[in-house]
Amino acid sequence: MTVTDPAAVRRPRIALAIGCPAGIAPELTARILADPAVNAAAQIVAIGDRRVIARGAEIAGVELDLDHLASDMKLPNESSRPLFINLGNLDPDTIEVGALSEPAGKSALANFKQAIALGADGAVDAVAFSPFNKASMRLAHPAYEDEIVFVTEMLGFDGVASEFNILPTLWNARVTSHVPILAVAGLITSDNVLRGLRLTDRAMREGGYKAPRIAVAGLNPHAGDGGNFGREEIDFIAPAVEASRADGIVCTGPLPSDTVFVRATRGEFDAVLTMYHDQGQIAMKLIGFDRGVTLLGGFPFPLLTAAHGSAYDIAGKGTADPGALRAAVLLAAEMGARRRRLS
Amino acid sequence: MTVTDPAAVRRPRIALAIGCPAGIAPELTARILADPAVNAAAQIVAIGDRRVIARGAEIAGVELDLDHLASDMKLPNESSRPLFINLGNLDPDTIEVGALSEPAGKSALANFKQAIALGADGAVDAVAFSPFNKASMRLAHPAYEDEIVFVTEMLGFDGVASEFNILPTLWNARVTSHVPILAVAGLITSDNVLRGLRLTDRAMREGGYKAPRIAVAGLNPHAGDGGNFGREEIDFIAPAVEASRADGIVCTGPLPSDTVFVRATRGEFDAVLTMYHDQGQIAMKLIGFDRGVTLLGGFPFPLLTAAHGSAYDIAGKGTADPGALRAAVLLAAEMGARRRRLS
Repeated sequence: MTVTDPAAVRRPRIALAIGCPAGIAPELTARILADPAVNAAAQIVAIGDRRVIARGAEIAGVELDLDHLASDMKLPNESSRPLFINLGNLDPDTIEVGALSEPAGKSALANFKQAIALGADGAVDAVAFSPFNKASMRLAHPAYEDEIVFVTEMLGFDGVASEFNILPTLWNARVTSHVPILAVAGLITSDNVLRGLRLTDRAMREGGYKAPRIAVAGLNPHAGDGGNFGREEIDFIAPAVEASRADGIVCTGPLPSDTVFVRATRGEFDAVLTMYHDQGQIAMKLIGFDRGVTLLGGFPFPLLTAAHGSAYDIAGKGTADPGALRAAVLLAAEMGARRRRLS
Repeated sequence: MTVTDPAAVRRPRIALAIGCPAGIAPELTARILADPAVNAAAQIVAIGDRRVIARGAEIAGVELDLDHLASDMKLPNESSRPLFINLGNLDPDTIEVGALSEPAGKSALANFKQAIALGADGAVDAVAFSPFNKASMRLAHPAYEDEIVFVTEMLGFDGVASEFNILPTLWNARVTSHVPILAVAGLITSDNVLRGLRLTDRAMREGGYKAPRIAVAGLNPHAGDGGNFGREEIDFIAPAVEASRADGIVCTGPLPSDTVFVRATRGEFDAVLTMYHDQGQIAMKLIGFDRGVTLLGGFPFPLLTAAHGSAYDIAGKGTADPGALRAAVLLAAEMGARRRRLS
């Protein structure tokens, strides 16, 4: 793949890897490629097998007009049509819709790797992907843990990346993620909270917020109740909030985590930075995060996807709602355009 | 106060202590005393100052027909009117509505103590109270921590009491409450989970459920993900769930806490037993717990109140919604009647 200078094209260029071919990924990807608003906002570079996307278009009942490229072809500077890099890695007739399989997982992984390579080369401004099925991917690559670990290893990235959960008017990022509750308190240091605040502020500014209002959750019940139920708020979180404010980040806290999301849903904050996985996930899933967007932030380029999964139960019926993936691709376009102007 | 045998009366007898006189407690209590459905379900024994309840009735615009008793009078076996024990402990003209004061807190505490004494004597089947203001109560009694600690100390109770948060179709109880996150994992033992399950099952059967369906949340992200993110689910929670099922408790888990409330709101469970304070509170407050009921269970008699506070900002206007307090008193009546039949 030869790299084209993205500054030579007008729209941001977004890689869109087709996720699990046994799930709703093909039909959703086809709907996105047929969406005029998406194509106005970005030059999409879809990646997968042309037979899979043709099947997806058939299921979705959309007509696609794509600029097909072989995987070793140079990306054109600009095309009025979405680009499609045909990896020729899966014949859809060889897999069963709605069933786990090694070939399905293998093709999703190959598409994802190609998209990451384009992001790393600077050939695209951001990367998006339609829903993966981790169990299928583990059949092809047993060591597959999650997207953050995979991208970190593939890039040899030595920074800290973080998952953001995004609803139309509310972002959620977290200081710790897949760690036992037993280990959480030890990770709530001023440095870690500060890093979370900076990452959140930067990602949201790239996502179009001028000065995002970030609420910082406490760790303990009633945010520690003045030290009665824990001291992390006083010793680590409050100092990090204060230091961030001095840096121009609009943030407040630590606030009791059982009311901070109620306040956020009433419009008081644009984001909540939570201290541990379920503190944010309990709230976001109740608010409706299955219709939301997941951003992996902190890498050299943003990675975005729909929050929901590969939905094997409704795959192939043409009924899957493309709203979350559409929001993910449009946010990728927004972040890509802004990064390009900022860089 | 001479004790009357509650078996001699037809309806359950419920003490109803007036909470903070500077808040919405007087007007809410007056509305409850004027409510025909409440009086059909229970013989209410309200406790406070008759001038305060008269002022509450005036604010609420209701007419009260009460059977007034001095605090040293014997409770009559049955009265067609709500009983009112006049402690004569606060002239409402001496306090400011919507302001913290020591006399306000002192009167709320005195009303509460009288109600607890009636419960302990067996003169009432359950105790309810309209909203307290803890800050006012601490002006009168600086050591006042919360209702559970106060009742435990007053009764010399050596068992374990627990707070339940109750919405019309969903109960939430927790294994640990006001402890730092750092200390939570160490308290998640099979014994503690088992005790929480038994307490929840018993309280819900008293509250009218034949066989409540209780979901048990995991402690860690993704309920530990098979041991990858913590082992408490495998070592302690699952064995407690299994032992409870063998005892006839309808329970399932441990389930990931970020989806268990979504499933419960769709009707899959009647209750969620959570492992720590915010795991339940984040969800319940988003679902609308400010309109819910708080039960203190595990004591020799049930104590119930509205989940919301004393609402100084709207006190005295007559606009406060009595729905949550009404639900608390009706649940007290239900639990009181059932306990009487069971005892």
